[in-house]
Amino acid sequence: MRRNIRLLLQYDGSNYHGWQVQPNALTIQEVIETTVRRIVSRPVRILAAGRTDAGVHAWGQVANFHTDTSIPSGKLKKSLNSLLPDDIKVRALSEEAPSFESRKSARSKIYRYFILNRPEPSPWFFRYSWHYSRLLDCESIARAAKWLVGEMDFSSFQASDCDARSSVRKISRFEVHSRSGMITFTVEGNGFLKHMVRSMVGTLVEVGKGSMKPDEVKEIIELHDRTQAGPNVPAKGLFLWKVVY
Amino acid sequence: MRRNIRLLLQYDGSNYHGWQVQPNALTIQEVIETTVRRIVSRPVRILAAGRTDAGVHAWGQVANFHTDTSIPSGKLKKSLNSLLPDDIKVRALSEEAPSFESRKSARSKIYRYFILNRPEPSPWFFRYSWHYSRLLDCESIARAAKWLVGEMDFSSFQASDCDARSSVRKISRFEVHSRSGMITFTVEGNGFLKHMVRSMVGTLVEVGKGSMKPDEVKEIIELHDRTQAGPNVPAKGLFLWKVVY
Repeated sequence: MRRNIRLLLQYDGSNYHGWQVQPNALTIQEVIETTVRRIVSRPVRILAAGRTDAGVHAWGQVANFHTDTSIPSGKLKKSLNSLLPDDIKVRALSEEAPSFESRKSARSKIYRYFILNRPEPSPWFFRYSWHYSRLLDCESIARAAKWLVGEMDFSSFQASDCDARSSVRKISRFEVHSRSGMITFTVEGNGFLKHMVRSMVGTLVEVGKGSMKPDEVKEIIELHDRTQAGPNVPAKGLFLWKVVY
Repeated sequence: MRRNIRLLLQYDGSNYHGWQVQPNALTIQEVIETTVRRIVSRPVRILAAGRTDAGVHAWGQVANFHTDTSIPSGKLKKSLNSLLPDDIKVRALSEEAPSFESRKSARSKIYRYFILNRPEPSPWFFRYSWHYSRLLDCESIARAAKWLVGEMDFSSFQASDCDARSSVRKISRFEVHSRSGMITFTVEGNGFLKHMVRSMVGTLVEVGKGSMKPDEVKEIIELHDRTQAGPNVPAKGLFLWKVVY
């Protein structure tokens, strides 16, 4: 019987060229597909809810694949974790109805971005956050972030090589918290354009620095012009945090 | 004027052969001494409160060095952090009286050991904890740990090549906590023999597995025989957590 296996994945993206298989570069999809193949002795194609970019991490990526193997789920998870590298792990594995598709069945995705905003860098967080030593004004950032919530055309935050047909997306949540020098941005949406979170956070950093007023973010959205938004913040601070079904 | 500079250091020990300078191996002391020398243009000798072993981390190592440089403390810290590698950072820097010695002035040291005790390994904690998938009995471990508190001869937990003159040490605290699958051992003492924390935790793991009864730890202490204690747990789960003055 054909089974539909769902994986809850966590990975440190530092050493990979993102999720999606590509020639001449090691990707997370490739590592997982190769590992599953070793276990089930058949080639598989694994699809994920979010195609994370090079250097981006996942706290809760969801992926699925179809297989004829009779290996029980518990054993499959254990074998995967023992063969996968240290920086890619399966947190949970379950069987789904044939209709489940990690990408298309998702209702929304939550991303988190971390900025270590204090004078001293950290030997623990340097892989998982962007260190910015000048103090950012988090109140202004939070005020500006409100403009980014809603269903709108986000083309001002879309990479030039993004091939999405429409740049309209619905962002249902954009929260900013600061604690012990770590600023956390939490963004939930029904879909994301290429580099969208990183350019939105980059724009908010301009506000936090004082180079832009909170209300200017509204104008930037309305201009539909990528060159008006702030630069992308580095990939290493970004996590695909959760996929909501 | 000769200044006595105190450093509060954090480091990920994964890529180093411990604190102390040694030929043909990269150590944390060497990296910091070389970096300070680049800044003050003079050779310096930096001494630390705890000579962490290869692979052991520091959440709060304290070190000090003497220098004639007139560079202000704030600038010195900033320069150090910009020149040090990502995995070694200065959390604080201050000036002390000439009599302060990071090692001899310390009243006690606190070490922490982390065991990730759940079926799935973690891509975040693999550098900073030992993954042990079979469930350990934390109540028995906590009961056994009580035997390790007090002033006694700890030769049963001393590496055979340890050159300490006496193996009597005073352990004032040995706490065991478990939360979300992470077991944390916190040990405070006025001094530690070579591999002492790792062999004490290794012995407690034997208790947690059920291969040893909690009260057997008392017998092991009294035997003064290293071969009776459990094996050392891996270095990567150990942190020099805090030095108390």
